[in-house]
Amino acid sequence: MSFTLGANQYGKAGIRLVSVERDGDRHFVTDFTVATALAGRLDDTHYTGDNSAVLATDTQKNTVYAFAREYGVGEPEAFGLRLARHFVKTQEPIYHARIRIEQHTWERLAPHGEPAPHSFVRSGGETRRAEVIVTEEHDVSVSSGLGDLTVLNTTNSEFHGFPRDKYTTLPETRERMLATSVEAWWDHSSEDVDWGKSYADARDALVTAFASTYSLSLQQTLFSMGSHVLRKCPSVDEIRLSLPNKHHNLVDLTPFGLDNPNQVYVAPTEPYGLIQGTVHRERELPSAGPQLW
Amino acid sequence: MSFTLGANQYGKAGIRLVSVERDGDRHFVTDFTVATALAGRLDDTHYTGDNSAVLATDTQKNTVYAFAREYGVGEPEAFGLRLARHFVKTQEPIYHARIRIEQHTWERLAPHGEPAPHSFVRSGGETRRAEVIVTEEHDVSVSSGLGDLTVLNTTNSEFHGFPRDKYTTLPETRERMLATSVEAWWDHSSEDVDWGKSYADARDALVTAFASTYSLSLQQTLFSMGSHVLRKCPSVDEIRLSLPNKHHNLVDLTPFGLDNPNQVYVAPTEPYGLIQGTVHRERELPSAGPQLW
Amino acid sequence: MSFTLGANQYGKAGIRLVSVERDGDRHFVTDFTVATALAGRLDDTHYTGDNSAVLATDTQKNTVYAFAREYGVGEPEAFGLRLARHFVKTQEPIYHARIRIEQHTWERLAPHGEPAPHSFVRSGGETRRAEVIVTEEHDVSVSSGLGDLTVLNTTNSEFHGFPRDKYTTLPETRERMLATSVEAWWDHSSEDVDWGKSYADARDALVTAFASTYSLSLQQTLFSMGSHVLRKCPSVDEIRLSLPNKHHNLVDLTPFGLDNPNQVYVAPTEPYGLIQGTVHRERELPSAGPQLW
Amino acid sequence: MSFTLGANQYGKAGIRLVSVERDGDRHFVTDFTVATALAGRLDDTHYTGDNSAVLATDTQKNTVYAFAREYGVGEPEAFGLRLARHFVKTQEPIYHARIRIEQHTWERLAPHGEPAPHSFVRSGGETRRAEVIVTEEHDVSVSSGLGDLTVLNTTNSEFHGFPRDKYTTLPETRERMLATSVEAWWDHSSEDVDWGKSYADARDALVTAFASTYSLSLQQTLFSMGSHVLRKCPSVDEIRLSLPNKHHNLVDLTPFGLDNPNQVYVAPTEPYGLIQGTVHRERELPSAGPQLW
Repeated sequence: MSFTLGANQYGKAGIRLVSVERDGDRHFVTDFTVATALAGRLDDTHYTGDNSAVLATDTQKNTVYAFAREYGVGEPEAFGLRLARHFVKTQEPIYHARIRIEQHTWERLAPHGEPAPHSFVRSGGETRRAEVIVTEEHDVSVSSGLGDLTVLNTTNSEFHGFPRDKYTTLPETRERMLATSVEAWWDHSSEDVDWGKSYADARDALVTAFASTYSLSLQQTLFSMGSHVLRKCPSVDEIRLSLPNKHHNLVDLTPFGLDNPNQVYVAPTEPYGLIQGTVHRERELPSAGPQLW
Repeated sequence: MSFTLGANQYGKAGIRLVSVERDGDRHFVTDFTVATALAGRLDDTHYTGDNSAVLATDTQKNTVYAFAREYGVGEPEAFGLRLARHFVKTQEPIYHARIRIEQHTWERLAPHGEPAPHSFVRSGGETRRAEVIVTEEHDVSVSSGLGDLTVLNTTNSEFHGFPRDKYTTLPETRERMLATSVEAWWDHSSEDVDWGKSYADARDALVTAFASTYSLSLQQTLFSMGSHVLRKCPSVDEIRLSLPNKHHNLVDLTPFGLDNPNQVYVAPTEPYGLIQGTVHRERELPSAGPQLW
Repeated sequence: MSFTLGANQYGKAGIRLVSVERDGDRHFVTDFTVATALAGRLDDTHYTGDNSAVLATDTQKNTVYAFAREYGVGEPEAFGLRLARHFVKTQEPIYHARIRIEQHTWERLAPHGEPAPHSFVRSGGETRRAEVIVTEEHDVSVSSGLGDLTVLNTTNSEFHGFPRDKYTTLPETRERMLATSVEAWWDHSSEDVDWGKSYADARDALVTAFASTYSLSLQQTLFSMGSHVLRKCPSVDEIRLSLPNKHHNLVDLTPFGLDNPNQVYVAPTEPYGLIQGTVHRERELPSAGPQLW
Repeated sequence: MSFTLGANQYGKAGIRLVSVERDGDRHFVTDFTVATALAGRLDDTHYTGDNSAVLATDTQKNTVYAFAREYGVGEPEAFGLRLARHFVKTQEPIYHARIRIEQHTWERLAPHGEPAPHSFVRSGGETRRAEVIVTEEHDVSVSSGLGDLTVLNTTNSEFHGFPRDKYTTLPETRERMLATSVEAWWDHSSEDVDWGKSYADARDALVTAFASTYSLSLQQTLFSMGSHVLRKCPSVDEIRLSLPNKHHNLVDLTPFGLDNPNQVYVAPTEPYGLIQGTVHRERELPSAGPQLW
């Protein structure tokens, strides 16, 4: 009885890279966690342990640090492109390289309102993400994304008109809190993008849409958020969003002789709704970028 | 400028369900975390907030608890099949239902060697997983899996013969520790399976293969683990494995005038190698089951 | 052989409370995780299971939600005082009540620079903390604190002059990164404090001291941070700080023919230095507040 | 205005040490996470940055690895004693050394029932802990403990007879699930202890007491667990337990026309009761060991 190797890849994950650019007294910090993943003609290492095609994951890690010095770090999409191209170009057996980067943001400290030249505080909210794939045939796919962007509307959200079967107990509501922690990936149709500006535009579109959409369902909010990003970012073809519905339930205070006019809520960790969807331009293309579900 | 809704689904995640079966004085505990995800004719809720096709995620959660009482819980694959069929059968707009279950294992306590009738201890190692998809056309996909199965060989692992480029510093080794935390999903070709036995067989095949493979690369170990599962579990068509290489590095003690004959290791959290691969029977079929990367 | 009950307490932890204040169209969000802990004449429940002195932890939780409606939420220190007083006053057997609150901060969203009336984003950095103890004899202890305030100086840090024994390999350095994640508690000598302003002052003092101290050791930075808080906050008697030294190690790029002029660093998760210390005014008082080690 | 340094300590945390003992083909694995903490005449480094008394935390880490080779690892209490004594004996300014060790357990794999000589699986349940303090005056304190031991009784637990005030809604119950995740520290009166046997005895006493106590309150169970440990372990003077009440709530299925005869439960993460207490022998001694609250 014999079996066959299917899809596979390997690389180094959790590569922590912090780079400091020094413009005289004024410093700039870039903080990445990088993961590499290579695929190619790798049957032999699986079948017999012959590693002649296996660029060591330790070497992949070394390359990340060396490139940070040789070429600088810059935007995660551009750094990922440089790395991915290097691996497919220099390693004959490798025909597919994927680089994933998570960026941790530091803000400049400003004691007494004066921006400090070399002191920073970690802004703990969302993390920026980028994924780049380069193939042997020079096909390139670039996606950008974010995670852990947690937002809340205290009003302007309703939920009603849903079907009622024998297991339905949820009352309809014309007034509820709506909170979610945004996770999203969006795919670019080109490499010719100002990555920093594009990310800022997408992030701004997401929160603007969330704040300005009068919501009858989290799905409606999701579609609005996706549409705003496509409208604001011309290079983006498609966006995938994963939105947990972080429930805030009004507490029943009547046992204590109290009313609760939309004031006191309990926010349980689980269970939670999970709304996931895709918004794309008219032309539909298969996405090579990261899938969220 | 107008945009289009693409692939989407929604459901309830983090449904914590503990069920106690009582056979006289002797009790049995089943502990699941369930997640539902439905897809279907859901354009309206995204475009206009019309929820007439949206079975509330709260209702989905209620159904899980009611089914646990009405039909009992049993094996996660079977419980998932029942739930998935219910949703596509009873909700006209829903044509695709996915149920994911994570099972937390409790062992019976045995103070003084005597099995206690109703006392249990959580076995903290691996979690068992199941995913079921049922479509409107009665297509069924059942996958089983596990996570967090952490294993270690203190010898019988080598790594050499890999290419050396200008960024390679890793020395070759004929003797190293090999440790990983197994995450795996395998797809069944049929529903006619003794799920409990099949899971036990697959788990046993994974650890047996890990322990008995003299390893020249973690890829070789991965292929051996996958092959063992296919050999032992006739219903399994394909298995996907994700194996972080949990490095154990020999500490250099020469600065302290000490040798280190493969005795003292440091086990850093990151970075880590990540080896991912698929093993399948000769016939290759597209998998509907959970993807690991 | 008989044994004795020693120190004990009990309560409810993880009480998630979100309160919305509505000033017309403009809303304000307060987000707390509350933990109660009561001590008193509780021997009977331990020795015989007689619960006549045991106010149920469920009741304690209910009280938190009811008070949020009856009296509003406000600052965590004031909310904690009200709760703690309630428990010792109304429950005869309880002579010691401790309330701990962790506050999660939400910032108002400002799409296009315009502050939104009822939309917020979770600021993910530090969490504010408060602990209040009230005893039967009306002794009151109020402490404030924070956690997860992560800060980084890219220069102005040295480390040398330390002793060298046979296990010392660390080179001296005149230039290093200094990063830490501040956890701190400080005790107030009075209840007559503007809690919001005091917290803002303490937080500002911590980051200002971190940014402005030329550091020869993290201990020196710790003492400076504590002193700044005492100087800025007249109600504070003592502060305890726990500062992990989040190492950033310069990567050796010489194997790749590259120098590394303080540019490329690796930031390992572990191991990490851990520096903990107390700064107090001349008079030393035993602290009733939370201990950090 | 001048301030004073109070209690302080410093050390290295997160030291990951894995040691392999090789008895011919048969190997044994010990896996520790070690944290050191030294206190002493350390005013200068806080006030002026003079580090002449500051044994670098990097040196402390090196010492841990070197001692693992020089003396072997063995039981965590014994390894901690050796390290703590070394630091106070060799570093004149240090008068107090604390070593904390968390032990991660590996079980030998036994494919087909045959114990493998050098293959192991991580047992994911509880972690064993030890803390040792040695002072300049040769005072020694040794504590042992554990965390994450999660246990569940499906019956034999009641809760009633508690006071009812205006905020009480909890019904009395004669039948409930009782589950907790045990965290405990116990102090030894002597160093002359077989640490491995003592730990096994204490762990066995904890689970036996949990399983065999008919419980009217979690406090009663706590006292029983503590008493069992003192009875079984003659070297133990005092034990401190922290027991979260991991609630399992019967689901109300009546809206679906179903009864629920103690079968289907929801297990929410929060809020949770938290019961903490101390049990000691008649003579009460101040504990130098780790405090749980």
